[in-house]
Amino acid sequence: VEEFIRPVTREMEEIVAHLVPALDRRTVERCVFSTAAQAYFYRSVMPAMLLMLGEPAYPRGFSRELAEHVAEFSLGGMERLAAATRRVRRTA
Amino acid sequence: VEEFIRPVTREMEEIVAHLVPALDRRTVERCVFSTAAQAYFYRSVMPAMLLMLGEPAYPRGFSRELAEHVAEFSLGGMERLAAATRRVRRTA
Repeated sequence: VEEFIRPVTREMEEIVAHLVPALDRRTVERCVFSTAAQAYFYRSVMPAMLLMLGEPAYPRGFSRELAEHVAEFSLGGMERLAAATRRVRRTA
Repeated sequence: VEEFIRPVTREMEEIVAHLVPALDRRTVERCVFSTAAQAYFYRSVMPAMLLMLGEPAYPRGFSRELAEHVAEFSLGGMERLAAATRRVRRTA
């Protein structure tokens, strides 16, 4: 945790905070976990996922397509949370 | 996979397709995986996560807060992907 996970998480937090400055610290941390979770998921549940997809292995190009999906999905998530934060601030 | 994962996935796909009708079938499937991944992540990496958070256990109310985060983050992801789909269709 200290040697690898924490430094990588901090780096991702800096990127997220830079991309979406409206988010508070805790939300930034949760966005990092939500993004990392998607990558981790496809790796850790791979046997079940291949069974679902009916493939013997992830097809060529799959990781690139998936990375694009995860990036777009996660950016959308951050944008929505940022918009909610702004609404709360305006009405406060 | 057939007895539990597939039926639950189908049900989640129906919900996503209903919430965001602009998405194609494959994108719906990936949105379901992206959403499920976040819930799965906090459960499966729990020991490392508690170390990161410096807590002996997930605090009371944590799962409710987290569910709200995952719901908002995932809705944002779906909205962004739907907006991209609409852009592609308009220029096609």
